Amino acid sequence: MTDDERAVIQANAYFYEAFCRQDMKRMESLWSEKELVTVIHPGWPAVYGRENVLDTWRGILESPGSPDITCAQVSVSVYDKIAFVICTEKLFTEDLAATNIFVFENGHWRLVHHQAGPAPSSDSSSMTMN
Amino acid sequence: MTDDERAVIQANAYFYEAFCRQDMKRMESLWSEKELVTVIHPGWPAVYGRENVLDTWRGILESPGSPDITCAQVSVSVYDKIAFVICTEKLFTEDLAATNIFVFENGHWRLVHHQAGPAPSSDSSSMTMN
Repeated sequence: MTDDERAVIQANAYFYEAFCRQDMKRMESLWSEKELVTVIHPGWPAVYGRENVLDTWRGILESPGSPDITCAQVSVSVYDKIAFVICTEKLFTEDLAATNIFVFENGHWRLVHHQAGPAPSSDSSSMTMN
Repeated sequence: MTDDERAVIQANAYFYEAFCRQDMKRMESLWSEKELVTVIHPGWPAVYGRENVLDTWRGILESPGSPDITCAQVSVSVYDKIAFVICTEKLFTEDLAATNIFVFENGHWRLVHHQAGPAPSSDSSSMTMN
Protein backbone atom coordinates (compact mmCIF):
# COMPACT_ATOMS: atom_id res chain seq x y z
CA MET A 1 0.00 0.00 0.00
CA THR A 2 1.34 3.48 -0.84
CA ASP A 3 1.51 6.37 1.63
CA ASP A 4 -1.24 8.12 -0.32
CA GLU A 5 -3.53 5.08 -0.16
CA ARG A 6 -2.90 4.82 3.58
CA ALA A 7 -3.64 8.53 4.05
CA VAL A 8 -6.90 8.33 2.06
CA ILE A 9 -8.05 5.31 4.04
CA GLN A 10 -7.26 7.26 7.22
CA ALA A 11 -9.29 10.25 6.00
CA ASN A 12 -12.13 7.89 5.13
CA ALA A 13 -11.95 6.41 8.65
CA TYR A 14 -12.04 9.94 10.17
CA PHE A 15 -15.19 10.58 8.17
CA TYR A 16 -16.97 7.56 9.67
CA GLU A 17 -15.66 8.43 13.14
CA ALA A 18 -17.12 11.93 12.80
CA PHE A 19 -20.39 10.36 11.68
CA CYS A 20 -20.46 7.86 14.53
CA ARG A 21 -19.44 10.37 17.20
CA GLN A 22 -21.84 13.00 15.86
CA ASP A 23 -18.81 15.32 15.72
CA MET A 24 -19.92 18.19 13.47
CA LYS A 25 -16.68 20.14 13.95
CA ARG A 26 -14.64 17.23 12.60
CA MET A 27 -17.18 16.71 9.81
CA GLU A 28 -16.75 20.36 8.76
CA SER A 29 -12.97 20.00 8.73
CA LEU A 30 -13.20 16.95 6.48
CA TRP A 31 -14.92 18.65 3.55
CA SER A 32 -13.10 20.71 0.94
CA GLU A 33 -13.22 24.48 1.28
CA LYS A 34 -11.96 25.14 -2.25
CA GLU A 35 -13.89 22.80 -4.54
CA LEU A 36 -17.55 22.29 -5.33
CA VAL A 37 -18.72 19.67 -2.84
CA THR A 38 -21.75 17.45 -3.30
CA VAL A 39 -23.56 14.71 -1.42
CA ILE A 40 -26.19 12.11 -2.30
CA HIS A 41 -27.67 10.63 0.88
CA PRO A 42 -29.78 7.45 0.57
CA GLY A 43 -33.09 8.35 -1.05
CA TRP A 44 -32.17 12.04 -1.40
CA PRO A 45 -31.50 14.07 -4.53
CA ALA A 46 -27.97 15.43 -4.96
CA VAL A 47 -27.11 18.40 -2.74
CA TYR A 48 -24.58 20.94 -4.07
CA GLY A 49 -22.28 23.36 -2.25
CA ARG A 50 -20.34 23.23 1.02
CA GLU A 51 -22.91 25.04 3.16
CA ASN A 52 -25.83 23.00 1.83
CA VAL A 53 -23.88 19.76 2.20
CA LEU A 54 -22.84 20.60 5.77
CA ASP A 55 -26.44 21.53 6.59
CA THR A 56 -27.49 17.99 5.63
CA TRP A 57 -24.79 16.55 7.92
CA ARG A 58 -25.82 18.89 10.72
CA GLY A 59 -29.39 17.58 10.41
CA ILE A 60 -28.22 13.96 10.39
CA LEU A 61 -25.69 14.28 13.22
CA GLU A 62 -28.02 16.31 15.45
CA SER A 63 -30.84 13.81 15.02
CA PRO A 64 -31.40 11.64 18.12
CA GLY A 65 -31.67 8.71 15.74
CA SER A 66 -28.23 9.31 14.20
CA PRO A 67 -26.93 5.81 13.51
CA ASP A 68 -23.91 3.91 14.70
CA ILE A 69 -21.97 3.18 11.55
CA THR A 70 -18.81 1.29 10.69
CA CYS A 71 -16.98 1.00 7.39
CA ALA A 72 -15.96 -2.31 5.78
CA GLN A 73 -14.82 -3.72 2.42
CA VAL A 74 -12.73 -0.63 1.65
CA SER A 75 -11.33 -0.18 -1.86
CA VAL A 76 -9.14 2.87 -2.56
CA SER A 77 -7.97 4.35 -5.87
CA VAL A 78 -5.53 7.28 -5.85
CA TYR A 79 -4.86 9.43 -8.93
CA ASP A 80 -2.29 12.05 -7.98
CA LYS A 81 -4.29 14.65 -6.02
CA ILE A 82 -7.71 13.02 -6.21
CA ALA A 83 -8.81 9.69 -4.82
CA PHE A 84 -11.94 7.71 -4.30
CA VAL A 85 -13.03 5.05 -1.86
CA ILE A 86 -15.71 2.41 -2.38
CA CYS A 87 -16.90 0.83 0.86
CA THR A 88 -19.74 -0.77 2.73
CA GLU A 89 -21.33 1.20 5.55
CA LYS A 90 -22.56 -1.21 8.18
CA LEU A 91 -25.47 0.05 10.25
CA PHE A 92 -27.40 -1.79 12.90
CA THR A 93 -30.31 -2.61 10.62
CA GLU A 94 -28.84 -2.49 7.12
CA ASP A 95 -25.80 -2.14 4.91
CA LEU A 96 -25.19 0.76 2.54
CA ALA A 97 -22.78 0.86 -0.41
CA ALA A 98 -20.85 4.12 -0.60
CA THR A 99 -18.61 6.19 -2.86
CA ASN A 100 -16.38 8.82 -1.22
CA ILE A 101 -14.28 11.15 -3.38
CA PHE A 102 -11.34 13.06 -1.85
CA VAL A 103 -9.00 15.79 -3.07
CA PHE A 104 -5.62 16.65 -1.57
CA GLU A 105 -6.02 20.17 -0.19
CA ASN A 106 -3.64 22.08 2.08
CA GLY A 107 -1.82 18.92 3.09
CA HIS A 108 -4.91 16.84 3.85
CA TRP A 109 -7.27 14.54 1.94
CA ARG A 110 -10.67 16.21 2.07
CA LEU A 111 -14.06 15.09 0.82
CA VAL A 112 -15.62 16.60 -2.29
CA HIS A 113 -18.39 14.01 -2.73
CA HIS A 114 -20.22 11.25 -0.87
CA GLN A 115 -22.95 8.95 -2.13
CA ALA A 116 -24.53 6.11 -0.17
CA GLY A 117 -27.39 3.81 -1.05
CA PRO A 118 -29.00 0.58 0.21
CA ALA A 119 -27.13 -2.66 -0.46
CA PRO A 120 -27.79 -6.26 0.51
CA SER A 121 -26.48 -7.11 3.98
CA SER A 122 -23.26 -9.09 4.16
CA ASP A 123 -21.17 -10.27 7.07
CA SER A 124 -18.00 -10.53 4.99
CA SER A 125 -15.27 -7.94 5.42
CA SER A 126 -12.31 -7.48 3.13
CA MET A 127 -10.03 -4.84 1.70
CA THR A 128 -9.00 -4.44 -1.93
CA MET A 129 -6.49 -2.02 -3.37
CA ASN A 130 -6.06 -0.56 -6.84
CA MET B 1 -17.07 25.53 -19.88
CA THR B 2 -13.62 24.09 -20.58
CA ASP B 3 -12.85 21.59 -23.36
CA ASP B 4 -12.27 18.91 -20.71
CA GLU B 5 -15.64 19.58 -19.06
CA ARG B 6 -17.32 19.38 -22.47
CA ALA B 7 -15.54 16.11 -23.25
CA VAL B 8 -16.51 14.54 -19.92
CA ILE B 9 -20.14 15.57 -20.40
CA GLN B 10 -19.99 13.99 -23.86
CA ALA B 11 -18.57 10.75 -22.45
CA ASN B 12 -21.30 10.78 -19.81
CA ALA B 13 -23.92 11.23 -22.55
CA TYR B 14 -22.41 8.30 -24.51
CA PHE B 15 -22.77 6.18 -21.39
CA TYR B 16 -26.50 6.88 -21.12
CA GLU B 17 -26.93 6.39 -24.89
CA ALA B 18 -25.28 2.96 -24.61
CA PHE B 19 -27.59 2.17 -21.70
CA CYS B 20 -30.70 3.36 -23.54
CA ARG B 21 -29.82 1.64 -26.83
CA GLN B 22 -28.77 -1.57 -25.05
CA ASP B 23 -25.46 -1.21 -26.93
CA MET B 24 -23.09 -3.54 -25.09
CA LYS B 25 -20.22 -2.91 -27.52
CA ARG B 26 -20.30 0.80 -26.79
CA MET B 27 -20.69 0.09 -23.07
CA GLU B 28 -17.52 -2.05 -23.17
CA SER B 29 -15.60 0.72 -24.95
CA LEU B 30 -16.62 3.25 -22.31
CA TRP B 31 -15.00 1.49 -19.33
CA SER B 32 -11.32 1.75 -18.47
CA GLU B 33 -9.09 -1.13 -19.50
CA LYS B 34 -6.18 -0.04 -17.29
CA GLU B 35 -7.67 0.85 -13.90
CA LEU B 36 -9.67 -1.03 -11.30
CA VAL B 37 -13.29 -0.41 -12.27
CA THR B 38 -16.25 -0.68 -9.90
CA VAL B 39 -20.01 -0.29 -10.02
CA ILE B 40 -22.76 0.05 -7.42
CA HIS B 41 -26.15 -0.52 -9.05
CA PRO B 42 -29.28 0.47 -7.06
CA GLY B 43 -29.75 -2.03 -4.24
CA TRP B 44 -26.63 -4.03 -5.18
CA PRO B 45 -23.36 -4.41 -3.31
CA ALA B 46 -20.26 -2.98 -4.97
CA VAL B 47 -18.93 -5.01 -7.91
CA TYR B 48 -15.16 -4.93 -8.57
CA GLY B 49 -13.17 -5.54 -11.77
CA ARG B 50 -13.79 -4.86 -15.45
CA GLU B 51 -15.13 -8.30 -16.36
CA ASN B 52 -17.45 -8.47 -13.34
CA VAL B 53 -18.67 -4.92 -13.96
CA LEU B 54 -19.30 -5.59 -17.66
CA ASP B 55 -21.13 -8.80 -16.74
CA THR B 56 -23.57 -6.73 -14.68
CA TRP B 57 -24.13 -4.40 -17.64
CA ARG B 58 -24.60 -7.35 -19.99
CA GLY B 59 -27.29 -8.68 -17.66
CA ILE B 60 -29.00 -5.29 -17.48
CA LEU B 61 -28.78 -4.45 -21.18
CA GLU B 62 -29.88 -7.90 -22.32
CA SER B 63 -32.90 -7.86 -20.04
CA PRO B 64 -36.18 -7.32 -21.92
CA GLY B 65 -37.07 -4.86 -19.17
CA SER B 66 -33.96 -2.72 -19.72
CA PRO B 67 -35.18 0.82 -19.04
CA ASP B 68 -35.32 3.93 -21.14
CA ILE B 69 -33.15 6.39 -19.29
CA THR B 70 -32.17 10.01 -19.76
CA CYS B 71 -29.69 12.11 -17.84
CA ALA B 72 -30.47 15.51 -16.30
CA GLN B 73 -29.07 17.99 -13.75
CA VAL B 74 -25.49 17.29 -14.79
CA SER B 75 -22.66 18.63 -12.63
CA VAL B 76 -19.07 17.99 -13.78
CA SER B 77 -15.78 18.39 -11.89
CA VAL B 78 -12.48 17.86 -13.73
CA TYR B 79 -9.15 17.40 -11.91
CA ASP B 80 -6.47 17.01 -14.57
CA LYS B 81 -6.86 13.40 -15.76
CA ILE B 82 -9.77 12.35 -13.55
CA ALA B 83 -13.28 13.75 -13.47
CA PHE B 84 -16.61 13.02 -11.92
CA VAL B 85 -20.18 13.71 -12.87
CA ILE B 86 -23.16 13.98 -10.54
CA CYS B 87 -26.49 13.65 -12.34
CA THR B 88 -30.09 12.56 -12.16
CA GLU B 89 -31.09 9.49 -14.16
CA LYS B 90 -34.69 9.89 -15.25
CA LEU B 91 -36.52 6.63 -15.80
CA PHE B 92 -40.16 6.15 -16.70
CA THR B 93 -41.19 5.28 -13.16
CA GLU B 94 -38.54 6.90 -10.97
CA ASP B 95 -35.49 9.11 -10.68
CA LEU B 96 -32.06 7.90 -9.61
CA ALA B 97 -29.17 10.04 -8.35
CA ALA B 98 -25.84 8.98 -9.84
CA THR B 99 -22.09 9.43 -9.49
CA ASN B 100 -19.92 8.65 -12.54
CA ILE B 101 -16.11 8.80 -12.25
CA PHE B 102 -13.97 9.03 -15.40
CA VAL B 103 -10.24 8.84 -16.13
CA PHE B 104 -8.51 10.14 -19.27
CA GLU B 105 -7.09 7.02 -20.94
CA ASN B 106 -5.66 6.73 -24.44
CA GLY B 107 -7.20 10.01 -25.55
CA HIS B 108 -10.68 9.32 -24.20
CA TRP B 109 -12.58 9.82 -20.96
CA ARG B 110 -13.48 6.37 -19.70
CA LEU B 111 -15.50 5.21 -16.72
CA VAL B 112 -13.85 3.75 -13.64
CA HIS B 113 -16.89 3.88 -11.34
CA HIS B 114 -20.66 4.29 -11.42
CA GLN B 115 -23.09 4.42 -8.51
CA ALA B 116 -26.82 5.03 -8.79
CA GLY B 117 -29.52 5.01 -6.13
CA PRO B 118 -33.17 6.02 -5.72
CA ALA B 119 -33.90 9.75 -5.40
CA PRO B 120 -37.13 11.72 -5.15
CA SER B 121 -38.65 12.48 -8.54
CA SER B 122 -38.20 15.99 -9.87
CA ASP B 123 -39.25 17.62 -13.11
CA SER B 124 -36.60 20.32 -12.89
CA SER B 125 -33.57 20.17 -15.17
CA SER B 126 -30.43 22.26 -14.83
CA MET B 127 -26.69 22.12 -15.30
CA THR B 128 -24.06 23.29 -12.84
CA MET B 129 -20.32 23.46 -13.36
CA ASN B 130 -17.40 23.40 -10.98
